[in-house]
Amino acid sequence: MRLYDCTTAPSPRRVRIFAAEKGLELELIQVDLRAGEQFSAAFRAINPDCVVPVLELDDGSHLTEIVAICDYFEAIKPEPPLFGSGAAGRAAALMWNAKVEQQGLAAMADAFRNTTRGLRGHAVTGPDGYEQIPELAERGLKRVAAFYEKLDARLAEAQYLAGDRFTIADISALVLIDFAAWMKVGIADDAHHLQRWYQSVAARPSASA
Amino acid sequence: MRLYDCTTAPSPRRVRIFAAEKGLELELIQVDLRAGEQFSAAFRAINPDCVVPVLELDDGSHLTEIVAICDYFEAIKPEPPLFGSGAAGRAAALMWNAKVEQQGLAAMADAFRNTTRGLRGHAVTGPDGYEQIPELAERGLKRVAAFYEKLDARLAEAQYLAGDRFTIADISALVLIDFAAWMKVGIADDAHHLQRWYQSVAARPSASA
Repeated sequence: MRLYDCTTAPSPRRVRIFAAEKGLELELIQVDLRAGEQFSAAFRAINPDCVVPVLELDDGSHLTEIVAICDYFEAIKPEPPLFGSGAAGRAAALMWNAKVEQQGLAAMADAFRNTTRGLRGHAVTGPDGYEQIPELAERGLKRVAAFYEKLDARLAEAQYLAGDRFTIADISALVLIDFAAWMKVGIADDAHHLQRWYQSVAARPSASA
Repeated sequence: MRLYDCTTAPSPRRVRIFAAEKGLELELIQVDLRAGEQFSAAFRAINPDCVVPVLELDDGSHLTEIVAICDYFEAIKPEPPLFGSGAAGRAAALMWNAKVEQQGLAAMADAFRNTTRGLRGHAVTGPDGYEQIPELAERGLKRVAAFYEKLDARLAEAQYLAGDRFTIADISALVLIDFAAWMKVGIADDAHHLQRWYQSVAARPSASA
């Protein structure tokens, strides 16, 4: 399987970490987002949404959307389970992954895409042009701070986001926090539970994937 | 099982339709979003994110996030399958569901929440106050129009979004289109494939759930 990737971008990193935890080997193909390669005719034929990651299956078909790619990996290689265990465990992993995506990653992307100079006129991923909205970037930063408080509260009562087992939700949250740190948004010193969890998940070998 | 619901809101409708397709009976508990009941202490104890739907399991625990609730239903009642079939079928259902959420429903919510008078100061779901950003509403409407073109193109090549089988992705798109129609955003007359698909899914008995 081949993964259309961009080493520096947060979204494909979620898939690389997930695959590393599974012990799945992927052929990585770099897409130069800074140079606009995602808008090339060649890449549009692979993903008209013009984003990475994209998983190319051995039959040549393409799969996009991180949760779908990771679910596919879980189906073809169930061990170790990264979507929890049983109906309730799986639902908890999907629930926390969705919260991290909607309240964390989407808010951080709003902050990033609506202020970064190189993204003027491209404030939304994809082929269509959208102007930046600076107020939305400010809102995004406030939302990320509010979400970190929720994460800290959750991690006061559970070892990992979905419970006592490391899941896709932890991978998504790790990537959120590293993405935010790169944007100079850190974890508060008094968020002890979030700090404890971060030290633990960032120390896993998969984090360098 | 009990579902915290609001008859008029699009998000819980996705779960009601999914449950109806499965033949699952839910006890519905109405949360009056217009009156702000989601911000009450009683409801915050159920879901600190202050949104519906919330599924209450028989052990008293609560599950939020639509994809997680629907995945739970799929696990406890696999027939009829609404997340496709097999690893690739399931991934396709999750992929299209994610596209509908991110490119359709989130954009439509941006349009709704950033213009509706009653949501001033509450432009983002949840307990924290965020002012409306009118430019974001405009962006949302443009994004929905662009996404409808993608849906039409996809439905030119497949009967349903994820392929030859009705899935959660079709439920999400049906709810998107009805939500948009209520906001006076319709399907273009020349979007023949999307029109054909809409007539088909809107005619299913579950659509009235």
